Amino acid sequence: MRLLAPFFLIISIFYSSIFNAQETNSTKDSIMVRKVFDEALEKGRAYDDLRGLCKDIGARLSGSVSAEMAVLWGYDKLKSYDFDTVYLQEVMVPHWERGTRENGYYITSDGKITKVNLLALGGSVPTNGTMTGEMIMFKNRDALLKADKKDIEGKIVFIAQPMDQKMITTFRAYGACYPIRGYGAIGAAKLGAKAVIIRSLSLSEHEHPHTGTMHYEEGLNKIPAAAISTEDATQLEAFMQESNSTVTFHFEMDCKVLPDKKSHNVIAEIKGSENPNNIITIGGHLDSWDVGEGAHDDGAGIVHSMEAVRILKALNYQPKNTLRVVFFMNEENGNMGGKTYAKKVKAKGENHILAIESDRGGFSPRGFAVDGNTQHLELVRSFKSLFKPYLIHYFEPGFGGVDIGPLKNEFENIGLIGLVPDSQRYFDFHHNANDVFENVNKRELHLGAGSLSALLYLLDRYW
Amino acid sequence: MRLLAPFFLIISIFYSSIFNAQETNSTKDSIMVRKVFDEALEKGRAYDDLRGLCKDIGARLSGSVSAEMAVLWGYDKLKSYDFDTVYLQEVMVPHWERGTRENGYYITSDGKITKVNLLALGGSVPTNGTMTGEMIMFKNRDALLKADKKDIEGKIVFIAQPMDQKMITTFRAYGACYPIRGYGAIGAAKLGAKAVIIRSLSLSEHEHPHTGTMHYEEGLNKIPAAAISTEDATQLEAFMQESNSTVTFHFEMDCKVLPDKKSHNVIAEIKGSENPNNIITIGGHLDSWDVGEGAHDDGAGIVHSMEAVRILKALNYQPKNTLRVVFFMNEENGNMGGKTYAKKVKAKGENHILAIESDRGGFSPRGFAVDGNTQHLELVRSFKSLFKPYLIHYFEPGFGGVDIGPLKNEFENIGLIGLVPDSQRYFDFHHNANDVFENVNKRELHLGAGSLSALLYLLDRYW
Repeated sequence: MRLLAPFFLIISIFYSSIFNAQETNSTKDSIMVRKVFDEALEKGRAYDDLRGLCKDIGARLSGSVSAEMAVLWGYDKLKSYDFDTVYLQEVMVPHWERGTRENGYYITSDGKITKVNLLALGGSVPTNGTMTGEMIMFKNRDALLKADKKDIEGKIVFIAQPMDQKMITTFRAYGACYPIRGYGAIGAAKLGAKAVIIRSLSLSEHEHPHTGTMHYEEGLNKIPAAAISTEDATQLEAFMQESNSTVTFHFEMDCKVLPDKKSHNVIAEIKGSENPNNIITIGGHLDSWDVGEGAHDDGAGIVHSMEAVRILKALNYQPKNTLRVVFFMNEENGNMGGKTYAKKVKAKGENHILAIESDRGGFSPRGFAVDGNTQHLELVRSFKSLFKPYLIHYFEPGFGGVDIGPLKNEFENIGLIGLVPDSQRYFDFHHNANDVFENVNKRELHLGAGSLSALLYLLDRYW
Repeated sequence: MRLLAPFFLIISIFYSSIFNAQETNSTKDSIMVRKVFDEALEKGRAYDDLRGLCKDIGARLSGSVSAEMAVLWGYDKLKSYDFDTVYLQEVMVPHWERGTRENGYYITSDGKITKVNLLALGGSVPTNGTMTGEMIMFKNRDALLKADKKDIEGKIVFIAQPMDQKMITTFRAYGACYPIRGYGAIGAAKLGAKAVIIRSLSLSEHEHPHTGTMHYEEGLNKIPAAAISTEDATQLEAFMQESNSTVTFHFEMDCKVLPDKKSHNVIAEIKGSENPNNIITIGGHLDSWDVGEGAHDDGAGIVHSMEAVRILKALNYQPKNTLRVVFFMNEENGNMGGKTYAKKVKAKGENHILAIESDRGGFSPRGFAVDGNTQHLELVRSFKSLFKPYLIHYFEPGFGGVDIGPLKNEFENIGLIGLVPDSQRYFDFHHNANDVFENVNKRELHLGAGSLSALLYLLDRYW
């Protein structure tokens, strides 16, 4: 025992000095994280900024006048927060416009006429006047793909598939249904259908149809594609199931595809004090669909990103690396902002070490999804105890974000991280008329900004 | 090495058999927990039941006709779910009634007249016509308690203290402000004030004042007490600060205290198959304040508790212990339901091992607060990995619930557990006109019911 004592003493001194260093760091960090959340909750600007974006501009689909206005808004707003540099980066974006006439109804074989609320899917061709056709229903997209061409030819296909309520993370349920909207028109056109109508991708029953991107395939007939509200879809499905009656569907949509248009990503940065050439991007997307106000999708991500850096500035934190806020254009229907950004920064020879995105709404933050190597994940997980007092508990491998995704092709060792808020209400609002400022809660939004800001601080220190 | 091999072999067989038994249990449990959540999310009844309670009945303060109706609703509803027994338990409750006239305004020294939205605090005496007085403002309750009697005598006290935005768990911010509402009238009356007006306890700025219990002290003047909306309070505070001008406050409230009234707890149970004498109570409170519809507070807890047991029944689970659902009466202004229940079941010689309460709203569930001994906490924590797929992460010591609280005085070893949902939005709705069905999200509510049901299953098996 005696012999071993000095050995233990040395070991224990060694460990205690490491421990103290860690302790000091950890104490310093926990104080800083507390300050970040205090600033976010007491003096946060995200909510007021979001009000401006939603109420002074509103919906802002790529190519629209509102999207141009949002670029100017973003530029002015970032200027007002006194970043070192604020500039625009040119991006060519697709330009699709909804028309002024979107109406639909159906007549069942007993003569009953029922109006439906519908929205053209983004990118759809118009109907060129009223389109009328016998409707054929499929429970899901798989059933459609297996169907017989002779049963479908000349008809209007209705895919009744709802999102799966049982999935806990609603984005998984959305992912599983995405092909219905994205590729429904291709599947239906292959079998000779004249149009495709889908049930809106929403987890709640309400009157507002949703929209979102859809695709055509070269060489195939481009057929009109629309979504009807979940309420209407449930009723229509019930009609078609119960009576086995014929339904004639009538609708018009005067949307149009226009030539690509020049737009911009909006960029602001604070130079790093130690490694100015190492760039950490944090962003969301400035464009939105053309209904609602793009409040959760992705106004929240815009104000989150700006606020995350504003908070660090307000606390006089000097970042080691260059922190860059990017408001990406055109995530919704082309991701040209994300693709262009990745290509241009690579071409300029910049060194991107990390990118963070917020594009899952302004709800209570739960944690972070990490798309990176094992060390990236372990580093983020090492912050777990620092985040515990803020009820941030989710630190898992996962998807970073659509806008920052293309950076991965250009920078081998980059880590991508996505903010993961509570997802339960997201698909009540997603791409529909309910995605408005009033449906964002101030504290939830500000906690998200605080979480991102604290993460940014920790990653800047320890990456 | 050779010598040790058999020893290791024995050890390893020993551990692997334990491990396998645990594995089997854990697999069985994780399958059951998955079934519970599937039932909650796909076939859940909580949301429709809550709609009934909110829309067919609405607000239901103890002693009101609506509260009587809620008792009948609860009885019928529990009967409809085919419990083994459903019965009423008599409870005497206080009976305070809001009047039909609650109005207020103030006049600043520049002659400007401003209307305020106000609500009498529950239990307040009336003003008996219009009460008019010079207003004196205090930043917080501490400042009031330190004030000089001569500055206050004959005046109307305004306590401007807001809830602290920086606290992450909003119930802590509420707890810190509770004395303003609960004891503000006592503090003000001691210094000779003629009335007390408080800023509503809410974390957001809006037009709806809140209400809630307040107390008087024997031998002290009972002065009228009301809350004004956070919006009005901010404006009033700004007026009084900026100009240092005098404000005359005018208001009327014709509320009244009536004699105690007979009411009931509503109780239903499923007999335990192994230990029928061991009782596990799960409940919420049936009464609400008299504004809004008591949707989050505590309609959510009512439907949560009923649904937690309904799900286990639907899955043909035979509980080992007796599971008892209790809809407590009068949590809001007296807790007579909780107190009476504890005394009566003790007097009957029942053995209560555990009680669970849901009274923090129908928001996304985050975990459980455990008020019990170390083993209780460790047992609940041992379920952590089973709950992880459902994003339930919070397993901490904490408060069980007001209604189940009195059981602790009667049963030494009882464990009390409270469901902990996300608290960020709770004080937007709490005790105000916004606590309506429309502000409850179906999935969030159903996930709460699933969490409670899974916990009930696990506790029944392993307690």
